[in-house]
Amino acid sequence: MQPIETKSPKVVVIGGGTGSFTVLSSLKDYTSNITALVNMADDGGSTGQLRDELGVLPPGDIRQCLVALSRSPRVRDLFNYRFDKGSLKGHAFGNLFLTALEKMTGNFGDATELAGEVLNIVGRVEPITHDKVTLIMESSNGDVTEGEFHIGDADFGKHTRPIIRLQPRATINPEAKRAIKEADIVVIAPGNLYGSIAPALVVDGVSDAIKHTSATKVYICNLVTKPGQTDGFNVCDYADEIERFLDGAKLDVVIYNSEKPSDDLIARYAHDGEFPVEWDKPSLAAAHYEARGCKLVAGKIAERPAASDAIASTRTLIRHDSNAVARELMRIYFA
Amino acid sequence: MQPIETKSPKVVVIGGGTGSFTVLSSLKDYTSNITALVNMADDGGSTGQLRDELGVLPPGDIRQCLVALSRSPRVRDLFNYRFDKGSLKGHAFGNLFLTALEKMTGNFGDATELAGEVLNIVGRVEPITHDKVTLIMESSNGDVTEGEFHIGDADFGKHTRPIIRLQPRATINPEAKRAIKEADIVVIAPGNLYGSIAPALVVDGVSDAIKHTSATKVYICNLVTKPGQTDGFNVCDYADEIERFLDGAKLDVVIYNSEKPSDDLIARYAHDGEFPVEWDKPSLAAAHYEARGCKLVAGKIAERPAASDAIASTRTLIRHDSNAVARELMRIYFA
Repeated sequence: MQPIETKSPKVVVIGGGTGSFTVLSSLKDYTSNITALVNMADDGGSTGQLRDELGVLPPGDIRQCLVALSRSPRVRDLFNYRFDKGSLKGHAFGNLFLTALEKMTGNFGDATELAGEVLNIVGRVEPITHDKVTLIMESSNGDVTEGEFHIGDADFGKHTRPIIRLQPRATINPEAKRAIKEADIVVIAPGNLYGSIAPALVVDGVSDAIKHTSATKVYICNLVTKPGQTDGFNVCDYADEIERFLDGAKLDVVIYNSEKPSDDLIARYAHDGEFPVEWDKPSLAAAHYEARGCKLVAGKIAERPAASDAIASTRTLIRHDSNAVARELMRIYFA
Repeated sequence: MQPIETKSPKVVVIGGGTGSFTVLSSLKDYTSNITALVNMADDGGSTGQLRDELGVLPPGDIRQCLVALSRSPRVRDLFNYRFDKGSLKGHAFGNLFLTALEKMTGNFGDATELAGEVLNIVGRVEPITHDKVTLIMESSNGDVTEGEFHIGDADFGKHTRPIIRLQPRATINPEAKRAIKEADIVVIAPGNLYGSIAPALVVDGVSDAIKHTSATKVYICNLVTKPGQTDGFNVCDYADEIERFLDGAKLDVVIYNSEKPSDDLIARYAHDGEFPVEWDKPSLAAAHYEARGCKLVAGKIAERPAASDAIASTRTLIRHDSNAVARELMRIYFA
């Protein structure tokens, strides 16, 4: 399914599940030329079980991106429906959909495309690689951890900034390569830096494609630090890590949130060891970005949930404002 | 989703899975005004497991009718895809689809309608009742058997022509009632007489709706007898049983196959205790039908599979010719 050609910008969004979901949900209101590229390292929960039992590629993050781009509310709800008992317990329906399609067609790309038709999506969703991989983390002390599920919430202790790689080495999906080449904007989504974003960036061919595209390379920085992994990171620390995984490819823009959450919210996050990503401290790192012409763009891109919002009692309290992020991207394109 | 109104006849097909599938598959090429009414007594296999574990209505036969009416070959294949290992083993994907939708919407009718949209079906599929029921068989010796799965292949011994009822009593779906009332033709599909067709006919309100419709009531007779249940049955024996379950409603037309299968085929079926349903013996029963104006229509409605057909080695060797059946129905309507 080719995207409809319009004069709206061609945007590629690289990432995983939740962060990409947020970026894509509103972006589709501004452009129909969207390609979501999704890491293939997920191995937890329903996705992990389907990989183990049926040998398929991981459907979970693909599902979230498809749902974000869907124009059919009822089918969207269906894809996110999770069975709550019996032998299907825990499976998101959309994961079963993608798995059945992959088994039937023998091809995860075809499966994703047909799912996109059923969901009536704007744009397209592509696995960043068709290779079946396991995520590997090598700490600076030589420890090796295997699997996204384990790495995603690992405590790195003092050994921060680990090496992230895939086993076996994976090669970029040619459709992903082409999308990056032809893009006007390449967005690196927020999300779990080592468990979700890095596994997309370290696929062979991704950094090369990003180096050779004329697209504006934009990174949307996380809002809060992750305890045991990115404690104390400021915006430039995040961007540095992204550039490290990009192996020489450089960011053109880093968008970060510049609105301080309420003291109450900060206190609730601090309770779990999470803190807003620091941005207002002048740092050498920032000077380094500015010196080479990379823009650090401050925006009010965090959502303020209404006090009555049911979600306000959950851990996803501080979230990106999907529409604000999309508008920042449009502002950059039309500047 | 209302059927598109055309001048083609309004046809209601009452039945279960395989028999309805055959009738519907070609019928949709001749009219878009189709309503498939499906019995809700199935409790075997994937369907039975989903009913047990999740308390849903039985999706299997609904799935087969949806697939028969689908205009989207790829989605059709997906709905029939069966997982072959792991904890999903044995589940047809379409069953999971309908189950997730029912759990999500809380309504099997809505689930079926949305599935119909996704499958891009001609016409509509409706459960004949929204009630959750168990099939009960009472033999003439007083024995009671519970469950479609057990009844479907039971050996009745000498106690043929059992009472079939549902527990608790079930009431006709108002959409089913309306469809029968407005129909030009009501077709009773071939299929497992006691396990699949009777459970649709004995729902409260079905016989009454059939008595009061001005539609032509057509029964498409089975091709072969079922060992232990309908041994020795001729066409009129089948029609008698249908009328018994219809509780006073009368058939206008009985279509039966008048082409003798090859001796080789007959021998292979005889090996399993199955024989072609007898039709060429003059009988009092036939005279009885003719006396009241019910037509017994002989047709070449059995498929002759090519010798090279892979299916020719399976038990579904003698099947109705879907297109021939549809043409007989059109002939009756336009006569």
